[in-house]
Amino acid sequence: MVSGYRCRVSTEVKSTIDGVRSEIRTELAKYLAIQRSYLTTISPELVPVCNALDEFLLDGGKRLRPLFAYAGLIAAGGTPTPHIIRAISSLELLQACALIHDDLMDGSDTRRGKPAIHRHFENLHQSNAMNGLSEQFGAAAAVLLGDLALVWSDQMLNTSEIPTASLLAAQRIHDEMRIELMAGQYLDIRESGEDTYSLERSLKIARYKSGKYTIERPLHLGAVIGNPDSASHAPLLDALSRYGLPLGEAFQLRDDLLGIFGDPAVTGKPAGDDLREGKRTALMAMTLDALDDIDRAELLRHLGSPAISAEKVEELRALIIKSGAVDALEQLIADLTEEALQAIEDPSISPQARQYLTYIALSAVKRNT
Amino acid sequence: MVSGYRCRVSTEVKSTIDGVRSEIRTELAKYLAIQRSYLTTISPELVPVCNALDEFLLDGGKRLRPLFAYAGLIAAGGTPTPHIIRAISSLELLQACALIHDDLMDGSDTRRGKPAIHRHFENLHQSNAMNGLSEQFGAAAAVLLGDLALVWSDQMLNTSEIPTASLLAAQRIHDEMRIELMAGQYLDIRESGEDTYSLERSLKIARYKSGKYTIERPLHLGAVIGNPDSASHAPLLDALSRYGLPLGEAFQLRDDLLGIFGDPAVTGKPAGDDLREGKRTALMAMTLDALDDIDRAELLRHLGSPAISAEKVEELRALIIKSGAVDALEQLIADLTEEALQAIEDPSISPQARQYLTYIALSAVKRNT
Repeated sequence: MVSGYRCRVSTEVKSTIDGVRSEIRTELAKYLAIQRSYLTTISPELVPVCNALDEFLLDGGKRLRPLFAYAGLIAAGGTPTPHIIRAISSLELLQACALIHDDLMDGSDTRRGKPAIHRHFENLHQSNAMNGLSEQFGAAAAVLLGDLALVWSDQMLNTSEIPTASLLAAQRIHDEMRIELMAGQYLDIRESGEDTYSLERSLKIARYKSGKYTIERPLHLGAVIGNPDSASHAPLLDALSRYGLPLGEAFQLRDDLLGIFGDPAVTGKPAGDDLREGKRTALMAMTLDALDDIDRAELLRHLGSPAISAEKVEELRALIIKSGAVDALEQLIADLTEEALQAIEDPSISPQARQYLTYIALSAVKRNT
Repeated sequence: MVSGYRCRVSTEVKSTIDGVRSEIRTELAKYLAIQRSYLTTISPELVPVCNALDEFLLDGGKRLRPLFAYAGLIAAGGTPTPHIIRAISSLELLQACALIHDDLMDGSDTRRGKPAIHRHFENLHQSNAMNGLSEQFGAAAAVLLGDLALVWSDQMLNTSEIPTASLLAAQRIHDEMRIELMAGQYLDIRESGEDTYSLERSLKIARYKSGKYTIERPLHLGAVIGNPDSASHAPLLDALSRYGLPLGEAFQLRDDLLGIFGDPAVTGKPAGDDLREGKRTALMAMTLDALDDIDRAELLRHLGSPAISAEKVEELRALIIKSGAVDALEQLIADLTEEALQAIEDPSISPQARQYLTYIALSAVKRNT
C-alpha cells in the first residue's frame, strides 16, 4: 500500500522541502533580475520579454525537477549549497522552454490559469495596435522566449559556480536529458498524426517526454553534482533509475487523468482540455480499447473537437469512467509508485535520502495537485 | 581601398581555409551519425528528423561562424586539433536552430533553394496522409528540430574533448552569444510591428542578431579556446571586436542587398524575397528616407505584400537604386570593411592571423556569394 509509506516521512522532511522550494524561487529571481538589467541595456523594448518570463517562472510551478535533483544530491551524499541550489534551479528554465513551446505547438490558450505565452504576446500586439498579424507575432515571440529560456537554463547552470568536476558531470546528463525531451516531444506531435490510439506508443512517448525528463534525469543530475564520482558509481544511479522510471510513468498517468478530470483551479487548464485537444494519452488508448463499438464511436466523434460543450465533457468523462480505464489507471499508478518506493530500499540509498524520495514521490503522483 | 588587401593573402591561406571547411563538414557528419544511431534506437519514427537535419547541415552553408572562430584561434596563438575543429563546428548547429526558427517565424517557404523545415514536414504530413492539420504539424516539427539543433550544438561543444579550461571559457562566451542572438531576434520581430522604418533601430538589430553573433563572438570563442588566458587578455579580444563589429555590420548590409538584389541561384531564396516579407532592413530605411513622397508611397504600397509580381519586383528594385541607397550602402560596406581591416594591424594580431582574418572578411562581404 502506497499510503503506508507516508508514516515514514518526518515533518522535518516536509519543512526542508518547503524551504528548498523557497530557495529555488530566490535563485531564479536573482538570475532573472541580472538578465533583466542586462537585456534592458540592449533595448527597453525587451522589458515585455523580461516581464513575461518573470511571471512565468516566479508565479507558479511545483519545482518538481529541481526537487528531484535535490533528492538525488542527498542520495549521493552531497551537501546542498546556494551554488548547488542555483545549478538545479536551472531546470525550471528548461521546463519553461518546454511548456512555452508545447503550448504553441498544441495551440493551447491557457497555462496556469493565464494566457499561454503566444496568446499573451498576441494580446500585447493587439492592445498596442502594432503593425502586422497579431497571431504571427504571438507565435514568433513564443518561439523566441522558449529559445531564450533554454539558453538561460544553460547559462544558469554553467555560471552556478559549482565545482568544475560537478559541472562537467552535470552537463553530460543535462545534454542527454534535453535530447531525450526533444525526441519525446517529436514522437508526441507525430503521434497526433496517427489514425489509431496505441497504449504502447503512448507509454513510450510518456517515458521520454515526461518520465525520464521529469524524474530519472533530474535525480541523476543531482547525484553527479553532489558526487561527481557517482557518474561511474553504477549501484546508486541504477537504484535511482529503478525508482525514477516507474515513478515517471505514474506521474505521467496522473497527468493523463488530470487532463480529463482535473479541477481547472488546480491544473490551470480548462476542464477536459485533453478531450478538446484529442491528446493521445495512455488513458485514451485504454478507454478506447475497453469500450464497446457504440461508445467508442461516440467518444471518437468528439475527441479533438475544439468546441465540445461543458455538458458533452461531462458525458464523455462518464463514458471514460464506465470503460473501467480510470480504475485501471489508478491501480497502475499505485503499483508503479509501489515499485518505485521498493527500489529505494536498496542499501545504496541512505535513510535520509529515502525520506526525501518518498515524500516527493507521493506529492508527484497524488490525486489533487 | 579594400581590394588592396587581397594581395596580402597567400594562396596557402585560401587552401587552408578550404581544408578547414572540409574538416568542419567531417566533424558535423560524425556527430550527426552518432545522434542518428542513438535516436533511431529510441524509435524508427525519428528517422525523418535525422534525415532533415543531415540534409540541412551537410548540404550547404558557408561555415562562416566556425571559420571566424578558427581565425580567432590562430590569432590567440592556438593550434588547431580535431577536438578544436569539433568544438567550433558546433556553431553550425546553433546556426541551424536560428535559421529553422527564423524561417518559421517569417513564414519563409524556401531555404538554400529547398523547402524550409516547416514546409518540408508539412509536405511529409500531406504525402503520408497523416491525421490532423499539415501546417500545424510542420510548424511544430520546426519548433522541435530547431530546439534539438540548439541542444546538439551544446552537446557537440561540451563533448568535443577540448581542454577543460578552454571549454569553460568557451561556454561563457557561447552562452552570452546565444542570449544576444535571441534578444536581437526578438527586437527583429518586434520591429515588424512598428509603423515606420528606422535606420538606427535596424542597425542595432543587425548588430545583435547578426554582427556580434556571426563575427565578433565566434572570434572570441575561437580565441579563448586557443588560449583560455586570453579571456582576461584585453588587447587581443578588443582588437578582434574592433575588427568584428564593423565587419559584422558590413556583412549584414551585404545581406540586406542580397535580400533584394540577390540571384536566387546563389541566395537559395526567391528573387526580391525581402520585399515580399517587408523586412525592416537598413537598406529599406535608407531608401524610404531618400525617396520623394510619390516614390515612397509607391514602395510602401507594395512592401510586405506576398503577391508582388516579378515585374513589380524589377520596378521596385529600380526605385531603390534610383534613391541612391544602394550606392550609399556599397560605400558604407567598403568603409566598414576598411575599418575592420585597419583594426587587425594591431600588434596583438600575428601576421598569419591577419591573413586569415583578411581572407574571411573579404569573402563575408563580397558581392556575389
